[in-house]
Amino acid sequence: MAAAQVNKRKRPYGKAINLSHGSGGKAMRDLVEGLILPALGCELNSPLEDQARLPISLWESGGHMAFTTDSYVVDPLFFPGGDIGSLAINGTVNDLAVGGAEPLFLSCGLILEEGLLFTTLESVLSSMAQAARSAGVTIVTGDTKVVPRGGADKLFINTAGIGRIPAGRQLSLMAIQPGDRLLLNGYLGDHGAAILQARGDLALEAEIQSDCQPLHTVIAKLLTAAPNTRCLRDLTRGGLGTVLNEFAEGAGVSIRIHEDAIPVRPVVRGICELLGLDPLYLANEGKLLAVVPENEIEGALAALRRDPAGEQAAIIGEVLPGPAGRVRLRSHFGGERLVDMLVGEQLPRIC
Amino acid sequence: MAAAQVNKRKRPYGKAINLSHGSGGKAMRDLVEGLILPALGCELNSPLEDQARLPISLWESGGHMAFTTDSYVVDPLFFPGGDIGSLAINGTVNDLAVGGAEPLFLSCGLILEEGLLFTTLESVLSSMAQAARSAGVTIVTGDTKVVPRGGADKLFINTAGIGRIPAGRQLSLMAIQPGDRLLLNGYLGDHGAAILQARGDLALEAEIQSDCQPLHTVIAKLLTAAPNTRCLRDLTRGGLGTVLNEFAEGAGVSIRIHEDAIPVRPVVRGICELLGLDPLYLANEGKLLAVVPENEIEGALAALRRDPAGEQAAIIGEVLPGPAGRVRLRSHFGGERLVDMLVGEQLPRIC
Repeated sequence: MAAAQVNKRKRPYGKAINLSHGSGGKAMRDLVEGLILPALGCELNSPLEDQARLPISLWESGGHMAFTTDSYVVDPLFFPGGDIGSLAINGTVNDLAVGGAEPLFLSCGLILEEGLLFTTLESVLSSMAQAARSAGVTIVTGDTKVVPRGGADKLFINTAGIGRIPAGRQLSLMAIQPGDRLLLNGYLGDHGAAILQARGDLALEAEIQSDCQPLHTVIAKLLTAAPNTRCLRDLTRGGLGTVLNEFAEGAGVSIRIHEDAIPVRPVVRGICELLGLDPLYLANEGKLLAVVPENEIEGALAALRRDPAGEQAAIIGEVLPGPAGRVRLRSHFGGERLVDMLVGEQLPRIC
Repeated sequence: MAAAQVNKRKRPYGKAINLSHGSGGKAMRDLVEGLILPALGCELNSPLEDQARLPISLWESGGHMAFTTDSYVVDPLFFPGGDIGSLAINGTVNDLAVGGAEPLFLSCGLILEEGLLFTTLESVLSSMAQAARSAGVTIVTGDTKVVPRGGADKLFINTAGIGRIPAGRQLSLMAIQPGDRLLLNGYLGDHGAAILQARGDLALEAEIQSDCQPLHTVIAKLLTAAPNTRCLRDLTRGGLGTVLNEFAEGAGVSIRIHEDAIPVRPVVRGICELLGLDPLYLANEGKLLAVVPENEIEGALAALRRDPAGEQAAIIGEVLPGPAGRVRLRSHFGGERLVDMLVGEQLPRIC
């Protein structure tokens, strides 16, 4: 692993972040060249250039370029199943993937608080490098800023991503039609519950792992099995409930989901009951919702279930003609209730 | 201006940022659709998609894609000559431009502190929109996070940028050769001095304006006049002194600059003397250093001087064969001193 090549005993860049590491001068160069670039395995990027030069030949068979960005401010930095580093890679990879893009290149912008320990930074960078390798993306350019103590909370990461959308692929919520089915790739709410637990807000025996994972491979399989898939969305902040409302409103349709069909781990359901949370609004970092035409839904389900990221995949509902914008949940007992967008906030700094 | 279209009296998104604006739910959507997208004039970006879809035809005549990122944490948010919004556009535009790229698309990642006033956010977004229009770039994708009070200082912005490098253009410090001349496009240190003044650290009558400006237009003129220009660099954190050292070390050459030739405003020179700062290390946000072969230097100088961003351009030094990595300054009195990289930090949160 690239991070192992960093000589941790020597740490020529110091023991903790100080303001000189953001100066643009010698200390910053020592940090960037001595720790950040080797830890991230940035080979394409010359440390002396402020921008990456990328080959355009990747697009010679046509298609589009996908471009996205996310900042990550999760608290705590480390949680069961991931940390801010793996989140910053997988989150942006997934934003590209749900647009139908093959993720290719990432940027990495770090905002560090004075006093941040290098052991912490090293762990996060090593995790980023590992997540990038797993997802097959390359970090090609970056930036490091340092703010005085109290000006930020430890460490924030921004990643922007570039991907390739193959020619002819067009996923859009405008393509959603009555009769389409809704497909979810697994348990809902694991990330939100893992963060709650990592904050010490819960006294639980069972450890809940975040579902933080890249989704582009399972999405590629899904799109092969169900080429007329209408659209995809990852279920991060705001959760399933919010995405369903965006779909219903954007496409001018009604959506019905079935409580019994939605996979939620018993421990997560228990936490929700305890704290008065709704798993429909819990954040996920490795879950996607696909809208698939009815004649392709069984193939799509089978394709998801053959992938480790989709073993618990389930068909959770269907698209109805109207009333436009309305989302309903059919409960275990047969009644129906409206599902609104998330109003207010559920958990700050969840990602 | 797009920002003017925002109905400031109504503010359906609230009066100040609260945690629900980062929830992923309804309040966040109201903020993004009610304020951020109209203020930034984001037309390419569908508010309901997490990624932009960009045409690849822009590159059909070949060349490369440039990709860069920077986070902006400047304190204070507003200063004479600019603010964090114009800085976040121009800084990333310039990182693309000094690589020889035509800037095209930007992303915008906002980290907002709970309690940030909407009047502040509106001003910053309006400034971003104006700077983007001036520079001819489009903000095509974005992200908004909110952290609880005390978790960040008011407002941080990350922008990543994509540009097009024309086929055959290759700027690199490895191309620097003995005999080349150094060209600077104007007064050194205005941004650093403006920030110092805006912080109230100085009791001065004269107002110093930051030089915050986009450089791609003046760079295009320079490259037409001097097509064999070796390389370019913008002189941000670390200042001229640090870039000279990077050039000398990277290219294995020696560099000599002439104190009398370097344009510094008397008021900036006065501040430096007062505070014990060296203008060679002050940050700039609209200054570039070009390394140009001797036979093209007069044309390059004339081209810069014809542009508003280069009226005070000057030839400030030359490249010598060795000793490798050494930078010397010939002083007003004829003596010489070594110019090292910036060691320690000069001014935190300068950009």
